[in-house]
Amino acid sequence: MKNYLLHDEWKIIEEGFNPEYNRISESIFSIGNGRIGQRANFEEDYTGDSLQGSYVAGVYYPDKTRVGWWKNGYPEYFAKVLNAANWIGIRIDFDGETLNLADCQVSAFRRELNMREGYLERSFTALTKSGKKVKVAARRFCSIADDETAAIRYAVTPLNFSGTLTITPYISADVKNQDSNYDEKFWLEIMVKTKKKQAYVLAETKKTGFQVCTGMKFAIHREGKEIDFPSSLRIQKEKYAGCTVDLKCKEGQETVVYKYAANISSLNYPNEDLYEKCKEAVDRAFTKGFDQMMADQAAAWQRKWDEADILIEGDVAAQQAIRFNIFQLYQTYTGEDERLNIGPKGFTGEKYGGSTYWDTEAYCLPFYMATADQHVGRNLLVYRYKHLEKAIENAGKLGFSNGAALYPMVTMNGEECHNEWEITFEEIHRNGAIAYAIFDYIRYTGDQGYLAEYGLEVLIGIARFWAQRCHYSQRRKKYMIHGVTGPNEYENNVNNNWYTNYLAVWCLKYTAEALAHVRKTNPTALVAIANKARFDEENETRNWKKIAAGMYLPHDEKLGVFVQHDGFLDKDLLTVADLPADQRPINQKWSWDRILRSVFIKQADVLQGLYFFEDKFDEATLRRNFDFYEPRTVHESSLSPCVHAILAARLGKRDKAYEMYLRTARLDLDDYNNDTEDGLHITSMAGTWLAVVKGLGGMRVHKDILEFDPFLPEKWETLSFKIRWRGFFIETKVTRSGVVLINHADGTLDVKVLGTKVRLKGNSQTEIPFK
Amino acid sequence: MKNYLLHDEWKIIEEGFNPEYNRISESIFSIGNGRIGQRANFEEDYTGDSLQGSYVAGVYYPDKTRVGWWKNGYPEYFAKVLNAANWIGIRIDFDGETLNLADCQVSAFRRELNMREGYLERSFTALTKSGKKVKVAARRFCSIADDETAAIRYAVTPLNFSGTLTITPYISADVKNQDSNYDEKFWLEIMVKTKKKQAYVLAETKKTGFQVCTGMKFAIHREGKEIDFPSSLRIQKEKYAGCTVDLKCKEGQETVVYKYAANISSLNYPNEDLYEKCKEAVDRAFTKGFDQMMADQAAAWQRKWDEADILIEGDVAAQQAIRFNIFQLYQTYTGEDERLNIGPKGFTGEKYGGSTYWDTEAYCLPFYMATADQHVGRNLLVYRYKHLEKAIENAGKLGFSNGAALYPMVTMNGEECHNEWEITFEEIHRNGAIAYAIFDYIRYTGDQGYLAEYGLEVLIGIARFWAQRCHYSQRRKKYMIHGVTGPNEYENNVNNNWYTNYLAVWCLKYTAEALAHVRKTNPTALVAIANKARFDEENETRNWKKIAAGMYLPHDEKLGVFVQHDGFLDKDLLTVADLPADQRPINQKWSWDRILRSVFIKQADVLQGLYFFEDKFDEATLRRNFDFYEPRTVHESSLSPCVHAILAARLGKRDKAYEMYLRTARLDLDDYNNDTEDGLHITSMAGTWLAVVKGLGGMRVHKDILEFDPFLPEKWETLSFKIRWRGFFIETKVTRSGVVLINHADGTLDVKVLGTKVRLKGNSQTEIPFK
Repeated sequence: MKNYLLHDEWKIIEEGFNPEYNRISESIFSIGNGRIGQRANFEEDYTGDSLQGSYVAGVYYPDKTRVGWWKNGYPEYFAKVLNAANWIGIRIDFDGETLNLADCQVSAFRRELNMREGYLERSFTALTKSGKKVKVAARRFCSIADDETAAIRYAVTPLNFSGTLTITPYISADVKNQDSNYDEKFWLEIMVKTKKKQAYVLAETKKTGFQVCTGMKFAIHREGKEIDFPSSLRIQKEKYAGCTVDLKCKEGQETVVYKYAANISSLNYPNEDLYEKCKEAVDRAFTKGFDQMMADQAAAWQRKWDEADILIEGDVAAQQAIRFNIFQLYQTYTGEDERLNIGPKGFTGEKYGGSTYWDTEAYCLPFYMATADQHVGRNLLVYRYKHLEKAIENAGKLGFSNGAALYPMVTMNGEECHNEWEITFEEIHRNGAIAYAIFDYIRYTGDQGYLAEYGLEVLIGIARFWAQRCHYSQRRKKYMIHGVTGPNEYENNVNNNWYTNYLAVWCLKYTAEALAHVRKTNPTALVAIANKARFDEENETRNWKKIAAGMYLPHDEKLGVFVQHDGFLDKDLLTVADLPADQRPINQKWSWDRILRSVFIKQADVLQGLYFFEDKFDEATLRRNFDFYEPRTVHESSLSPCVHAILAARLGKRDKAYEMYLRTARLDLDDYNNDTEDGLHITSMAGTWLAVVKGLGGMRVHKDILEFDPFLPEKWETLSFKIRWRGFFIETKVTRSGVVLINHADGTLDVKVLGTKVRLKGNSQTEIPFK
Repeated sequence: MKNYLLHDEWKIIEEGFNPEYNRISESIFSIGNGRIGQRANFEEDYTGDSLQGSYVAGVYYPDKTRVGWWKNGYPEYFAKVLNAANWIGIRIDFDGETLNLADCQVSAFRRELNMREGYLERSFTALTKSGKKVKVAARRFCSIADDETAAIRYAVTPLNFSGTLTITPYISADVKNQDSNYDEKFWLEIMVKTKKKQAYVLAETKKTGFQVCTGMKFAIHREGKEIDFPSSLRIQKEKYAGCTVDLKCKEGQETVVYKYAANISSLNYPNEDLYEKCKEAVDRAFTKGFDQMMADQAAAWQRKWDEADILIEGDVAAQQAIRFNIFQLYQTYTGEDERLNIGPKGFTGEKYGGSTYWDTEAYCLPFYMATADQHVGRNLLVYRYKHLEKAIENAGKLGFSNGAALYPMVTMNGEECHNEWEITFEEIHRNGAIAYAIFDYIRYTGDQGYLAEYGLEVLIGIARFWAQRCHYSQRRKKYMIHGVTGPNEYENNVNNNWYTNYLAVWCLKYTAEALAHVRKTNPTALVAIANKARFDEENETRNWKKIAAGMYLPHDEKLGVFVQHDGFLDKDLLTVADLPADQRPINQKWSWDRILRSVFIKQADVLQGLYFFEDKFDEATLRRNFDFYEPRTVHESSLSPCVHAILAARLGKRDKAYEMYLRTARLDLDDYNNDTEDGLHITSMAGTWLAVVKGLGGMRVHKDILEFDPFLPEKWETLSFKIRWRGFFIETKVTRSGVVLINHADGTLDVKVLGTKVRLKGNSQTEIPFK
């Protein structure tokens, strides 16, 4: 755990040069706009420790699988988000000496991420080896107002000398992924082009054949005006294009480089148009100019904050943390493109390949549903609909037939990428999460039409999978699901994981409900779906019903709890309190077998189920299970604490709820797990939002009614959050004395607050005091 | 399954050139002498498909581990037997055209492995691209009489031309392992040296720093006499040394190259002496000459056959198969060096790295105990004793303490090399097999002194491991062992595997017995061992006793069988008869999860236990378990059928016993599993021996008495085998009418035959008719 960043309500601030933390800061100070993401690498050359990272959404590479021992059914490749062309680079030389902070004495170093307006700023003074002192101030952002473009303002001032300043803005696609399995570079050059003050690199990914054109145009200003320079040397190398400008510079004279860049990919345009489109985008940005682009950026972010901000008064660290999380989520995914999704590290690192996990459905969807327009959540669902065929193929590879669909654990394009048998083949609960997301989306938005349009087809594929994946035990006269890994990945290949079995039953039942709904509301659609899926409704649904009724759901009478899986209670039933501090985190201290046979839980399966289906269980049941499983959970998944926070809040365990909220809120800012250097835990950030809004805020939907049951942590003065709800826009402010709800829409809305029905009139505010 | 080899009692014969089977033949026709092993690669150049393989026992390379996803506790490297210098190479050119069968029309190709005399022979006629017709006859062997040396006789005759014949005998260490994880070469050159008619390469392995000097000296003969040649060009390249001789040759004139080679490793001499020792060995062979060496070789093999041969009359295929297995086992391991062991593929391929597995203790030890001097089996045990410290370190890495020892799953020098968590960390029954081998060795040889000298220390380490590896389940009031993989590797991470739990209990009890024995027979040794191991006898043994008494041993009352592991009976209890033929072998047709959750068994755990501890169970119990587990076993491990053969024979299921024997007897000769190209299944060959001697021959030891309960498969006329037994040498001949036992020793021996006590007088023969 580190603590080198300053606390501020709207900014992330690093003061002082911390090369030992550079990779961490590069992750934290990342900028992005959903189309491109950029780690906080330096514009000028830097030979110190750094993870160079520029990413273009949807552009990936199928890196040949690397395993120790091959198992039948493993995928041939792991799709990876590509480190794409470096568009930020501006090489700076003074009298032939290259500016490189690794070689300098650095002072007054400051890095600042302005979340309100959406930019990254960095300034420092450097003393070079030859004794030259120079001041630099740089600002850059990826535009969310025009998401093909980005801009940099880079100001450099010699402090103790005059001489020749050489400036080389460039684009370089000669990059590689640090996690490349076989140490190859993934890009091939198609074209390199330079023009006056412009440079373009068009590159293609090996195997996948994605093309990306990255370009830039620059201007140099002094005293607020663009200056002309006699000539510039154009440099073209393999996958590299740049322009070198030599200028006389005087002590104390500031020279400002404005670099306007664009990344245009073949996802959005035909290959033959990429260069032209890139040139257009670069020109557009250049013409608009840095200041106007910056103003547009601030305005666009303001619109996002107006809808999604959470205000915490009385706790700057908490305020900073929740805004950081919201900011990074929206930098990663804006919801405008149904082909994109949310990688666990977003565009802030290479780890986990930038691929899609069940995190999206289980954790991110509620955030986007509540803070963005309905089509954003819908696009997340449609992403999986578009992968249905691949999910059916994937199930086919594992021996399933008749249209059974198994969604991949990790994917970029719908195909499975992961290659640990206990995960790839066995962590099948993900299939349930994808069905649950359809239910959750419809429950939250009321968009029942989604079922006929997309949802039902997916549900049928998933239900068919469960029906084939279980077997009937003659001995026990029950249906069972053997050989699974639940969300608690500290158990592998277990039998009858309660969460998985319960979810399977729920999927079968919900699919039957969905069928009934579509039959009633859109019978024509049902016929079309049934034909397409060759659905034998009568026999298949009869079978589903039998399985749902006969499924074994392990339960212990004596403890009154659901049993995580067969044999769990045979373990040595220690609690985390029995674990010496020096043994934690167990995933760094213990060998895998020891973790597996211990009682300790990475993230609690059973509680995940109780969270998803909270209203199916009475409070006593929730409590018994929480009290049994929570003390055995080590929360070594960043996705774990939010679920515990929500349940703890539901059970009135406020200290526990707040403790759980704290576990993830500043996970990256304080580098809690010593892994922020690999990238930010983007999907966990949605978990933090859940912990605040569904946990502390007590927001939930029950029988089509929005409910709030909030409380305020002791340290906080107020907590305010905003949510969208079926066309309404509701602001909730929790104070010491009570809850204030503001209905920003015109219509009236009935909600439940602190257990009582409350009618919220349009455009007005209602206060409900704490009892 | 292939059938291209001719059946012969003493030879393996390939007639006709089968380049598509070349790798298979290269494995099958391998030669070796326990110190070096050589695949049946061609002496002359060959650009067709081939797995070049020359191996030097005990010389390995720690290849950096390659995994998809790292788990705590994985070893850093996988030790691999190294492909070592090519010492067989003789390049042949006619008028500048290189002889290469891949470019020729080949006729009269014949390859023959003479098992009686221990050599490989090959002859062919080749028509080259330019139309030259040439005849070649080559013979080679690795001497077992002088195991540092080897010799080749290579005769070449131009059939339709006269011209220049260029002969280049050479040594090349510029080789690599095909299974190198990162495609590197493992050898560094130390020295390359040529002298007249001689060439030497001294090379060192990277990281491990083993040095091997490989050298050769050659002579060229015509008409039975060495000929002189004016000069030879000496060639030295990186890691390569050779001599090129140009000779005029006449149509029909035979030229014979005699090449004498030696491989000398730093395992046996200081580095600085290797070249001299190699030169000495080469000279020794050269001076002795090919014919005398060949005579010594035949005589040495005759001595081995006198002791280890099995004679089967009436079935040439079976006769050939059992001799092939015995031959290859003795080519792999001679038992003279306690630092060496038996890799699953011996020195016939790279797969499994040539490392040591539990195969040695469970399958190979009985073969060597019965067919070789007592010190051979003892050396196999001492190998593990020497690794005890590493086994304690290995256990330490997995969280065990106080001298608990976990022997590695796969090892070269005592350190664990494997990296699949479900095997490396969980297939811990291997530890039991190592303890069992001590028991088995003492039971068979009567060498009780072994306990005080070596055995007890190992047993204490192993017992300590089991005591820590189990836990007490408060719920079930039983000790349990969770998270294991049994010999049936088609189940991973299961709880309470009956075989493992039973073996653990047995280890604890046997260690206590061993303690008592050493206390009685050698109290001084006991004190020394206890001090060295910091053994708290009172408390530790009290704990062992408690665990042994309280261990949970899953048993099903209704079926009357031991339960493979918790939950096994909850499966869909199909039998192999329910499996469509096109689904087999399941390890090639099914994804891993499907295999795991199926009932099908790779090799039967429970039956392995019943085989080890047969005399602890009544026949009805053996039968119930056999009848339950055998029909569910797919025998996809080559180590599986022998155990079933033995139990089937024990239960009077003669057809089943014979069927099981057939499953492995010709496994490699007929390439049953389509993998002989990777190398031979050396350790399984011991299993075949077990199937014959312990299965069909019904040989077992019960209460210090040797028993025989043989039967003759219908097709066979006689079966004869020889075994050593506590200083005796007993020949057993089974005929249609009965059993003939010949006691070749002077003393009298009481044995049990067909259930009846029989007294075998010294140097005489006793006949016991079948009833």
